[in-house]
Amino acid sequence: MGRIKREDYVKAIETSLAEYVPEKALPQQKLFNAMRYSLLAGGKRIRPVLLLEFCGLCGGDQEAALPFACALEMVHTYSLIHDDLPCMDDDGMRRGRPSNHVVFGEAQALLAGDALLTAAFETMLSEESINNAGAEKAAAAAGTLAKAAGAYGMAGGQEIDLESEGQSISADMLLKMDECKTGALILAAAKMGCILAGADEKQTAAAVTFSKAVGISFQIVDDILDVSANEEALGKPVGSDAEKGKSTYVSTMGMEKAQEAVRELTGTAVSALDVFGKDGQYLKNFAGRLANRKN
Amino acid sequence: MGRIKREDYVKAIETSLAEYVPEKALPQQKLFNAMRYSLLAGGKRIRPVLLLEFCGLCGGDQEAALPFACALEMVHTYSLIHDDLPCMDDDGMRRGRPSNHVVFGEAQALLAGDALLTAAFETMLSEESINNAGAEKAAAAAGTLAKAAGAYGMAGGQEIDLESEGQSISADMLLKMDECKTGALILAAAKMGCILAGADEKQTAAAVTFSKAVGISFQIVDDILDVSANEEALGKPVGSDAEKGKSTYVSTMGMEKAQEAVRELTGTAVSALDVFGKDGQYLKNFAGRLANRKN
Repeated sequence: MGRIKREDYVKAIETSLAEYVPEKALPQQKLFNAMRYSLLAGGKRIRPVLLLEFCGLCGGDQEAALPFACALEMVHTYSLIHDDLPCMDDDGMRRGRPSNHVVFGEAQALLAGDALLTAAFETMLSEESINNAGAEKAAAAAGTLAKAAGAYGMAGGQEIDLESEGQSISADMLLKMDECKTGALILAAAKMGCILAGADEKQTAAAVTFSKAVGISFQIVDDILDVSANEEALGKPVGSDAEKGKSTYVSTMGMEKAQEAVRELTGTAVSALDVFGKDGQYLKNFAGRLANRKN
Repeated sequence: MGRIKREDYVKAIETSLAEYVPEKALPQQKLFNAMRYSLLAGGKRIRPVLLLEFCGLCGGDQEAALPFACALEMVHTYSLIHDDLPCMDDDGMRRGRPSNHVVFGEAQALLAGDALLTAAFETMLSEESINNAGAEKAAAAAGTLAKAAGAYGMAGGQEIDLESEGQSISADMLLKMDECKTGALILAAAKMGCILAGADEKQTAAAVTFSKAVGISFQIVDDILDVSANEEALGKPVGSDAEKGKSTYVSTMGMEKAQEAVRELTGTAVSALDVFGKDGQYLKNFAGRLANRKN
């Protein structure tokens, strides 16, 4: 039964990511370089950390959960690479560095994204991962990620984004878009942690409430930062939503109400964790840090 | 224990594909339209047919295997959509119709490909699919497809293709490229059929020998057709490999030796099926038809 110390989460995730997508893989070395460029570019690792923590809170084997945590980060990274492409958002900067396609070219970036999405499932469904997690848990967790990333989840949210560019959309549609585009993977992280730990209904319900609230709050903070952040801290240009005519929480409800919504959602998330007693404190702090982040 | 009649394979596959990617899925209707445009555009359905047949030959439940067969076709279709994009092969025609991005635009085609790749795993790892196939078989089969589609398989082959465009490559590298780009999914089809049926070692070894030979033969025939086919029958322009300066079997070994290789590989494939006795006849004919196809 492998436990991972909380202070070692990010290190464990990054070490494993680097192993799953190795440096030497001839004759496809360039593909692996492009995958690693974005996958190992830092980032907050929010989704894998959530998975590991919920798995631990519910008494699961965190070592066995590590490939699933890494898979979440691979899916998240693929979505960033494809979203940044010229035919999508055409963003040249990401995490303070040139976007994948700026460095490697469009074709290579497209393929690196494809390969990362596929690698997520390869990683979760390797013989070793299946053996360590158990086939039932592995299949259910991988299925949960697939659903969250697909046409009814993250890709579906991207579709709404694509169709609504340059026009203002209703508050309802904005919420639906963000529930899909940002919320689905964060919710999947919590659910997968619970599945892998064999959590009970009460624990799972708390994880779902927490991660749904955090998912939307996270997107509202993103929208706020796009207006108000320090560009250097953010690692990408400020004001890009407005420039592209995108509807955001700030544009639909105003800055003050957006900030109020973050406070309320964070409160909801924090309260949900009470079922975990004082073990829930780590995620309470985590939610607080996400609400007050500067990038 | 669901069996599917051989003459009903393609109908069963196409009916299921249309159900897995449904017509009405608001507010992401456009995404589903783009996915269906390429997924339901006909095609030979070679990979899902191989999976169903090997599953049946080895005594498996073909109804339970159907989602896995459909997943193979989704992965194949995503790869065609992305390969046709302007930044990749920039092909405007596919299966006698305008390519996905010509009809729906680049961003939508990119997203439709992403969503189809994801839908493959969603389909294999739905609660229903896992229950019907059993978690161990479902996880192993889905893992096999992930590996075949990823950076060491199909995406890796695409990488070699990308890097070698405009320059001639060695016969060895050409073989490696095609083993990855075309062979990996065909091999996965056979392996997945065996996994889902719980095939024994002898059956699996025969399926592997058959599908490896058919996979390379299939690509050589593709290369031959690119030089010699009737454009209308082919559904896409003839001579596009040469125009793009791509190395092919015809350019490296000449037409005569390429045709000889197809005969030899088909012979190898057919012989491997002897372990299945007279039940193997269907796939023997199948291999023969693939060798002599006109598109």
